[in-house]
Amino acid sequence: MEYKQVIVVREDLDISEGKRAAQVAHGALSAALEAREKHTKWYKEWLREGQRKVVLRAEDLGHLRALHEKARALKLPCASIDDAGLTELPPGTTTVLGIGPAPEDLVDQVTGSLPLL
Amino acid sequence: MEYKQVIVVREDLDISEGKRAAQVAHGALSAALEAREKHTKWYKEWLREGQRKVVLRAEDLGHLRALHEKARALKLPCASIDDAGLTELPPGTTTVLGIGPAPEDLVDQVTGSLPLL
Repeated sequence: MEYKQVIVVREDLDISEGKRAAQVAHGALSAALEAREKHTKWYKEWLREGQRKVVLRAEDLGHLRALHEKARALKLPCASIDDAGLTELPPGTTTVLGIGPAPEDLVDQVTGSLPLL
Repeated sequence: MEYKQVIVVREDLDISEGKRAAQVAHGALSAALEAREKHTKWYKEWLREGQRKVVLRAEDLGHLRALHEKARALKLPCASIDDAGLTELPPGTTTVLGIGPAPEDLVDQVTGSLPLL
């Protein structure tokens, strides 16, 4: 079985590359902690395999929320990140969605059609 | 006490934004796991404070290694990431360095002068 994590970023936010990368890291860590708690085997196998991650794009907040619903319906570990808004964004802006680690085929049911960042 | 994590990326690698963000997330998670094991209090406080992260730039591999040495000398949790090279890079290319979470003043002793990504 191959495991992967996907982090989906909103492409409609006007932020610096560094800020976006920090949000991606935030989503990756939060979703990984969720997986560690609720799907320990998936989490451990994923770490053992080298913690594969892919960063993808969603159009806007509505798109991100629809993906989140779909991931939850499949009971995948996931984490939506709201920025504290101390620097480039208004407080509470949802920036990224981390999904997994989980079996690749399950993750692809949610994000298989999204373009790479 | 305020805690933060810094992820330093090499600016001399010609890779896509998504690939770079995935490497940043890899460095963030690996350094966080190192902190959880060796500086549990720092790790927990950092999560409680909202896991603050900053992404910075280093010039090249030599620069990244010098920062790594400095972080190790201060006994900060850190993780240097070598890419598996399955997509855009030659196998084993060192891409990022994650430092912390650790007390802000200690991290700044290593990376305080670096520019934001």
